[in-house]
Amino acid sequence: MPRTELEYPKEPYGTVKRYSPRASYALRTIHTIINTSPILHVSFNDPSPSSSPSPSPFPTILPMLGQMGSFARPSADEGDVLDLYLHGYVSSRLINISRQPSSSSSTPDAASPPPPPPPPPGLPVCIAASHLDGLVLALTPNAHSYNYRSAILYGHATLVSDPSERLYAMQLITDGVVPGRWAASRVPPNKGEMASTSVLKVRIATGSAKIRQGPPGDDKGDKEDEEVTGRVWTGVVPVYQVLGEPVAGPYNEVKEVPGYLGEYVRETNGMTREAAFEAAKEVVVKKGGEGE
Amino acid sequence: MPRTELEYPKEPYGTVKRYSPRASYALRTIHTIINTSPILHVSFNDPSPSSSPSPSPFPTILPMLGQMGSFARPSADEGDVLDLYLHGYVSSRLINISRQPSSSSSTPDAASPPPPPPPPPGLPVCIAASHLDGLVLALTPNAHSYNYRSAILYGHATLVSDPSERLYAMQLITDGVVPGRWAASRVPPNKGEMASTSVLKVRIATGSAKIRQGPPGDDKGDKEDEEVTGRVWTGVVPVYQVLGEPVAGPYNEVKEVPGYLGEYVRETNGMTREAAFEAAKEVVVKKGGEGE
Repeated sequence: MPRTELEYPKEPYGTVKRYSPRASYALRTIHTIINTSPILHVSFNDPSPSSSPSPSPFPTILPMLGQMGSFARPSADEGDVLDLYLHGYVSSRLINISRQPSSSSSTPDAASPPPPPPPPPGLPVCIAASHLDGLVLALTPNAHSYNYRSAILYGHATLVSDPSERLYAMQLITDGVVPGRWAASRVPPNKGEMASTSVLKVRIATGSAKIRQGPPGDDKGDKEDEEVTGRVWTGVVPVYQVLGEPVAGPYNEVKEVPGYLGEYVRETNGMTREAAFEAAKEVVVKKGGEGE
Repeated sequence: MPRTELEYPKEPYGTVKRYSPRASYALRTIHTIINTSPILHVSFNDPSPSSSPSPSPFPTILPMLGQMGSFARPSADEGDVLDLYLHGYVSSRLINISRQPSSSSSTPDAASPPPPPPPPPGLPVCIAASHLDGLVLALTPNAHSYNYRSAILYGHATLVSDPSERLYAMQLITDGVVPGRWAASRVPPNKGEMASTSVLKVRIATGSAKIRQGPPGDDKGDKEDEEVTGRVWTGVVPVYQVLGEPVAGPYNEVKEVPGYLGEYVRETNGMTREAAFEAAKEVVVKKGGEGE
């Protein structure tokens, strides 16, 4: 664990421009939001769609599973410099692209001097994770908001070719779904499973997080209008994700829900519920004197 | 309501390539997933970062609020052709870009013949929404999966300049957070609020959805291995989002939680929980004979 809290560099493309007092660049904050998000949204440009005569003008987004980790230093914690490993519904498209050497073809308008240094290898990707913690209901629609924790990472994705690193990432991601699940399932993967599994590793260039907590904050004029405050309910509806009672599948032979799973369900439910209710009450310290 | 179910065209960039039996191109399916997602992830390329000497190689993603609707035909339902209205933490960056006329600068490698037709006005964007419905725990890590409903839309975003269309969109989005909230709050917005509110309208080019439901599906070899089935619990942990008991804010003067709000909380919680448990049991009809 580093002694001081590390922060990502503030690149022009990665700087939070709106409501900046809500922003954080701390690795620990960002990595925790990413690691507790069951689905990550991964965006990239497809430089060469094979089946199309003209390239797509749109970036695309894939929902994927991922966890931050360090293969070189597996004991590293969430405050350390980490890579992001991605797996799950990895499209063959994304994998094919990330196999190609990086080129500037995904960099629009590359005509301006000075010539940029060669980009790191891999496909430029952007990864987002967002947790909704509450509906913030204010006097006016404009002052409505959400309590949320969101993070974004920018980096270069490459396919992991080293089998032992791939195995490390597969375990990291499986245990990210339910801690301890890897060891409790049929492992190691056989040859066919290893061959058919693709893992992407994203070397992070920068990232940021944005967090909003607390009750609604209306303008003074509305708060002092008794006609309005007398009729419009204001407050927060806490929102949290619940893990339901596990439902055994058709070929399950294990009578009892195993301890590690039952415990994870109970602990997670307690924590997420408490966090949502805490966020509903907590007043955010405003550094910049900004309003809502 | 259209008599037949409309579908989006299968463009090369928008076609689901993996597990295609799980794919849907039906407008109703896609629009429902978008409209029930409290946070949308919006991806775009920034063609001209003003503060940077060289353009960013990365697409970016912003979490935003949005709802599908038709200003021209407000009675249109989710199976109709609709626009996506985006609001919320709209970055000034995104708004500035979408004010500019569309150019091919965001189209990498535009050198190949034949010359493409001029793109529609607006910024090319991609929008994703993903609902997690369950953790699918199989015998082997490779057969692990999620139950989920995800949708993706591609289109061109422009700023809404017509004040009455902006008002329509603001109400649509506010009522998307809690139905009936617009009329129950202090409306209409005053001049300052209207001037400071930006709404983006996305004309949809195409889209798709992907849905996975049901219990785990392992390979025959593992299911017939009694050593494995005797020790590995298999099944689904249903996952659903809960709206907690509303927490009144510091300047709330309305003693009782209003009926429309209490009802929405109760109804939503009942539906999402039931859907997650239903998804845990339901066996997906596999059209293509694909495995897990």
